[in-house]
Amino acid sequence: MLRPVIRFNAVVFLIAASLTGGCDRPVQPRTPLVSVAEDQLTQVSIINALMLGEYNGMLPMENLLRYGNFGLGTCDHLDGELIVLDGVAYQARSDGTVRKVSPQDKTPFAVITPFHADGDFACPLAKSLEQLDAQLNKQLPSQNSFVAVRIEAKLKSIHLRSVPRQEPPYARLAAVAKKQTTWTRENVEGTLIGIRCPGWVAGLNVPGFHWHFLSSDHTLGGHVIDCQIESGKVSFDVCDSWLIKLSDSVEFQQADFSRNLSKELESVERSRGK
Amino acid sequence: MLRPVIRFNAVVFLIAASLTGGCDRPVQPRTPLVSVAEDQLTQVSIINALMLGEYNGMLPMENLLRYGNFGLGTCDHLDGELIVLDGVAYQARSDGTVRKVSPQDKTPFAVITPFHADGDFACPLAKSLEQLDAQLNKQLPSQNSFVAVRIEAKLKSIHLRSVPRQEPPYARLAAVAKKQTTWTRENVEGTLIGIRCPGWVAGLNVPGFHWHFLSSDHTLGGHVIDCQIESGKVSFDVCDSWLIKLSDSVEFQQADFSRNLSKELESVERSRGK
Repeated sequence: MLRPVIRFNAVVFLIAASLTGGCDRPVQPRTPLVSVAEDQLTQVSIINALMLGEYNGMLPMENLLRYGNFGLGTCDHLDGELIVLDGVAYQARSDGTVRKVSPQDKTPFAVITPFHADGDFACPLAKSLEQLDAQLNKQLPSQNSFVAVRIEAKLKSIHLRSVPRQEPPYARLAAVAKKQTTWTRENVEGTLIGIRCPGWVAGLNVPGFHWHFLSSDHTLGGHVIDCQIESGKVSFDVCDSWLIKLSDSVEFQQADFSRNLSKELESVERSRGK
Repeated sequence: MLRPVIRFNAVVFLIAASLTGGCDRPVQPRTPLVSVAEDQLTQVSIINALMLGEYNGMLPMENLLRYGNFGLGTCDHLDGELIVLDGVAYQARSDGTVRKVSPQDKTPFAVITPFHADGDFACPLAKSLEQLDAQLNKQLPSQNSFVAVRIEAKLKSIHLRSVPRQEPPYARLAAVAKKQTTWTRENVEGTLIGIRCPGWVAGLNVPGFHWHFLSSDHTLGGHVIDCQIESGKVSFDVCDSWLIKLSDSVEFQQADFSRNLSKELESVERSRGK
């Protein structure tokens, strides 16, 4: 099923430099890292910062896209679900609309990689997202690496959610998720954008699978709560380098990330809003 | 005390590409990432892999040094304490000798950054390593970022350790540390090489400070268990990007990193071998 890969590993270089000036803080934010090897998964901030309500964007989309062409996350002020597919950033908002994100919009949390398939296989015909995850785990390699998973699928049904834009002072994500909007659509074609993280990323990213969706006609999208696969093709990309970009905001630097928020995260990720 | 910084952020580019061929595993190791922004802390593997006895080197020193000029770690087969200072990699072995590491020697665990001071201050005159850490924490910024700390010091005394080269099947690090060699020297000059990680790196790196030492004459070095500072100067570099390079070895990919090894790590890091 899995094929050996022989490939010339191109290294993508996108170059930038800037002046940073000191003012009220001794240590200033730096130039974004703007070169990335193809096996690198890059993330903006850590999931526990988002859990605690740190929704102010830190990295503009145009900079985020220098780190890859495939990924997911959220937008400034937690304004919807971010979907990055084929190098384009889309935002699935809580009013049900999908639109392209402006290059200047900043993300407070995102995960992205330059997607180069290491292998592919027919998608298991799962009757639920839980079944899909379990079936994929049997076929995907590298339990202690990161894996980007792209599924081109016909879906019998898909259950999606998005979250409404927030204003400061921000509520915690678990509270916001209770106000999420959800949709179920039947007989849809589109792409499931998945990132699978090892279990030991707890607090930093989402252990296991994290799925967003974009329909082929780009009119439907969101965070996947559940789905039934009719048919599809899975391709995957194993990432052995993991880069985390930390915020230098006062909120981030002063936050207490010592609490275990795993249970709270699980409810946010898989909640049906009931 | 802390000075504003105005700096042109050069991005270091060191370019390499290679052919990787598939054989018994479908997903092959890739070209090392060979470009790094100056605020990036790069680490090879995760500390819990070392705790579980994964001592086979994965990255040659010549590649490690492409990620920075300042850092610490260990060598292939856990053969001593690795010290990277001013771009040179040294190995403090358990027989008390210090030597330069061969470019082809591989490290199973290391932490490195291109050191560019964001600020400096006079070193607190601490009577123990514990006091030093506490005093530094009052003066260093960014509790949720990584900080590289370099101290040029005159020491009243320093208590060092190193560990002997291991052969497979490898014992766990906690067992090996019981066989460590330790030295105390008085009235020594040299450099303390420190990496301070946020508390939330548990399992991946060492939360808090991790110190190695190299004497000015390069004849004495090791992992610092304790010290008394007579005088010194601290310079520090805040790192807001954190890159982890994961092993694709079968041992790493099949390992169970779900156990909390924090207590075991603490005893290994600060043990006096008693």
